[in-house]
Amino acid sequence: MDASRTELSWSGWGDPAQARPLPAAILGLLRDGLGVSRPNPVPTASEQVELEPIRLAPKIAAGLVALVGDPYARHDHEARLRHALGKSTLDLLALRAGRRLPAPDLVLLPGSHDEVLAVLKRCAADRVAVVPFGGGTSVVGGLVPEAEQFSGVVALDLLRLNDLAGLDEESRLARLGPGLRGPEAEALVGARGYTIGHFPQSFEYATLGGFAAARSSGQASAGYGRFDELVMGLRVATPAGTLDLGRSPKSAAGPDLRQLILGSEGALGVITELTVQVRPVPASCRYDGWRLESFAVGQEAVRRLTQDGPRPTVLRLSDEAETALGLAAPDQLGSGGEGGSLAIVGYEGTDDEVQRGAQAAAAVLRDAGATPVPAAGPDWNRGRFHGPYLRDALLDAGALVETLETAAFWSALPELYRAVTRALTQSLANQGTPAVILCHVSHVYLSGASLYFTVACAQREDATTQWREAKAAAMAAIGLAGGSISHHHGVGRDHRAWLVDEIGQLGVAALTAVKRELDPTGVMNPGILVAS
Amino acid sequence: MDASRTELSWSGWGDPAQARPLPAAILGLLRDGLGVSRPNPVPTASEQVELEPIRLAPKIAAGLVALVGDPYARHDHEARLRHALGKSTLDLLALRAGRRLPAPDLVLLPGSHDEVLAVLKRCAADRVAVVPFGGGTSVVGGLVPEAEQFSGVVALDLLRLNDLAGLDEESRLARLGPGLRGPEAEALVGARGYTIGHFPQSFEYATLGGFAAARSSGQASAGYGRFDELVMGLRVATPAGTLDLGRSPKSAAGPDLRQLILGSEGALGVITELTVQVRPVPASCRYDGWRLESFAVGQEAVRRLTQDGPRPTVLRLSDEAETALGLAAPDQLGSGGEGGSLAIVGYEGTDDEVQRGAQAAAAVLRDAGATPVPAAGPDWNRGRFHGPYLRDALLDAGALVETLETAAFWSALPELYRAVTRALTQSLANQGTPAVILCHVSHVYLSGASLYFTVACAQREDATTQWREAKAAAMAAIGLAGGSISHHHGVGRDHRAWLVDEIGQLGVAALTAVKRELDPTGVMNPGILVAS
Repeated sequence: MDASRTELSWSGWGDPAQARPLPAAILGLLRDGLGVSRPNPVPTASEQVELEPIRLAPKIAAGLVALVGDPYARHDHEARLRHALGKSTLDLLALRAGRRLPAPDLVLLPGSHDEVLAVLKRCAADRVAVVPFGGGTSVVGGLVPEAEQFSGVVALDLLRLNDLAGLDEESRLARLGPGLRGPEAEALVGARGYTIGHFPQSFEYATLGGFAAARSSGQASAGYGRFDELVMGLRVATPAGTLDLGRSPKSAAGPDLRQLILGSEGALGVITELTVQVRPVPASCRYDGWRLESFAVGQEAVRRLTQDGPRPTVLRLSDEAETALGLAAPDQLGSGGEGGSLAIVGYEGTDDEVQRGAQAAAAVLRDAGATPVPAAGPDWNRGRFHGPYLRDALLDAGALVETLETAAFWSALPELYRAVTRALTQSLANQGTPAVILCHVSHVYLSGASLYFTVACAQREDATTQWREAKAAAMAAIGLAGGSISHHHGVGRDHRAWLVDEIGQLGVAALTAVKRELDPTGVMNPGILVAS
Repeated sequence: MDASRTELSWSGWGDPAQARPLPAAILGLLRDGLGVSRPNPVPTASEQVELEPIRLAPKIAAGLVALVGDPYARHDHEARLRHALGKSTLDLLALRAGRRLPAPDLVLLPGSHDEVLAVLKRCAADRVAVVPFGGGTSVVGGLVPEAEQFSGVVALDLLRLNDLAGLDEESRLARLGPGLRGPEAEALVGARGYTIGHFPQSFEYATLGGFAAARSSGQASAGYGRFDELVMGLRVATPAGTLDLGRSPKSAAGPDLRQLILGSEGALGVITELTVQVRPVPASCRYDGWRLESFAVGQEAVRRLTQDGPRPTVLRLSDEAETALGLAAPDQLGSGGEGGSLAIVGYEGTDDEVQRGAQAAAAVLRDAGATPVPAAGPDWNRGRFHGPYLRDALLDAGALVETLETAAFWSALPELYRAVTRALTQSLANQGTPAVILCHVSHVYLSGASLYFTVACAQREDATTQWREAKAAAMAAIGLAGGSISHHHGVGRDHRAWLVDEIGQLGVAALTAVKRELDPTGVMNPGILVAS
């Protein structure tokens, strides 16, 4: 739809040209260690994937198309397929399973806030479900609505809302379109000497609107903040009208409604413009690798750096298993080396800030018994967005691979780590598929941190059920151990059943009340976040 | 009610023993410069203030009293009066006007979350309005409900919810009762070596529950963060049940509902426990005074320190008028000295951090042409909580004195400053009372800052109407200039009409929907925040 833009692969991650074969050592480990034996490749052509037939009445569709103009509407197989799923392992397995997939009946590409508003009002009147679509990188089923009760499904691709509407250099704020992918937004503000500093693993393909709607957190969150901390203003189209939020960095004008839209996952409305904090592009960046004796010792060191400083820009700690596999640098998989727990400690800023930060951090880390691993920092930086490619190759080979993440206060972290690891291990062992569980800390706060798990085992015949069982066990463990049901992936449909663990029945009722007000006919991403 | 606790004066600020007479220079200025000539003292005894009669039916009252126990209920004149008003100038003028005042029919002092919950459920059933009461320091009419449609009013004084339920040193989190005043909470965590770091001007008398419910911001917000940034967990009793929020520092489990309770001003429920970030008590504190050429030049310097560092813990900049009057140090009023714009730049931390911060800040400030004012930092620190005493003395003398505050992004700040100053000046001049308008910046963010105005002129006969007119003019100017309707005072009843300027009709509707869900019969602080 835009020739200059690499389309996200319909069947996996990113640009297939970037994918690499698995190292022989890994194939051996999969076969011998995990019993992976049956390859499960994706269909070779998108036409092989069957989609449910279009059910939106032509008259309704025509009325919607008229709101954005003919050149900006699609209902061909390719467009429907590309907007049908996100990028969770369940999504990728669904493509491989050869089942007929639900897909939007119509893809619309609105060109303005007013067009979005008009589409939403029309959809509300005609009972058409609306799926706001940014990068299409959801890993929690955020793009697959429960649309049975609706007359059809429209995917609202925000691709065209991609401008830099203004840069306020004094306030260091950029007004940006929600359809901008990470690199596109960075290029726009970068040309003026600024960076947003938001670099999640999905950076290359996910969009600003998605970062906001799903409360994304980037690899440099320790330095720049999470995306929900970078958003100062939001314009939102809802079926009930427009919300313009954010007249100042902070306010005491009642509850902060920006924080109600952040994390709303398209279930309340569509973010049509974001005002985002920017900072000068750092003159210097340095990422150091350090080996700690163990994950536990490493966590102590990471906590000390976070609480007492110097707070790094990037701070990441792999557990022993992840370190052994070398997963901190996906390009170097299998090269983990000498055991222990690998930390990546990065500083960005002026030359002086970076040097002082790295030096002071070195003192803290050496005090914790850490030794430098010179290649690890640059290796991590080189491969920092490549993890998802690896998953595609592993799924093709017949491995079941998925990630899940949680967060907790520091004191709860060790038990949360044990409980989730145990739950995943036991669930998959009980299913006859011994698993490898890897974990890292990658987002830190004064009071706590995130845990990011990667799970790998052999796919059973019904790998979807297999993963759902393991995931349910992990979510139950998270609930008991007091962790958050998601640190940065979001709720979507996949986590919806557990939202009550985090905010209670009354919290869910409060959210549902907001949804009823902003979206009275419930057309916005039905079944996502709260029940439809 | 607690012998060890200095009661907040019923007729003014704080502990009357701390009040001081106005310096002669100020009395002269009031008389000669502003035409202040008619003293307006408070009644000498609380019995002189007439309250509306109790209207809550004895049977309903008895049912409510039974829920907390007889020793924890009051309906005497003194208790009703002490819970009738906050500490806005309008409140203080109402006491002086000799009008009969609305007051709660009954004051209850619940001892637990469950008792609060039981009271709320009973009040909802019996249609009794409930005013959650912390320190009683609201300056926006947050304690004066619109209760005509209800069968009576209960003030729920949270005094007894005052314990440190737990201190998690690893996560640096304290679980604290909402009824704790600032110094009480600091004493509890201070005994273990920690500080919350939240020091608003109301610190000595306001409570943690109020800090949270009204989105308070303290004088050291640049270093420790606003109170809404320090709250990691909340327990809330509502008529519809309990909310337990905050399982991790940050989460992607949908919208952050903590941010819906923060700023809810008692209109959604009662905060019964807070989990608050603490930090080690700093080894060293240093507050330096600097004189800048002008407020405009000072703002540039303050912005540079905020955006490029070293970010101070305390950062404050008085405009030329406030500097000339010496209001940055209320104890030294009238001693402003040699013109320009006075900045207070404070660092707290290790000796080394403080020294390095102060040195680097000195370089930035000298670069902006600043010269040191050695006494100003210690003077500010000594008088930092004394401003409200001054207001009492000025009101007694017959001056009309009030403060108002707003915030905006940096680029909007100069015009916001001019517009509000002009609106206040013109409105009061038109009313025949030429005014002095003072302003300072006292809370800074990467993208913007707050402006805090102090207004003084002669009281007209109907000083309430006089101030309401001036305030309306200021609020209109804020709306046009793009400022927030409040940076840290809150909405209450006094700002409610302007909430729509900040969040729009749809934002107000969304808040109202949440209120309907959590408080279906609308008994929680009716008329506060949103219309009842």
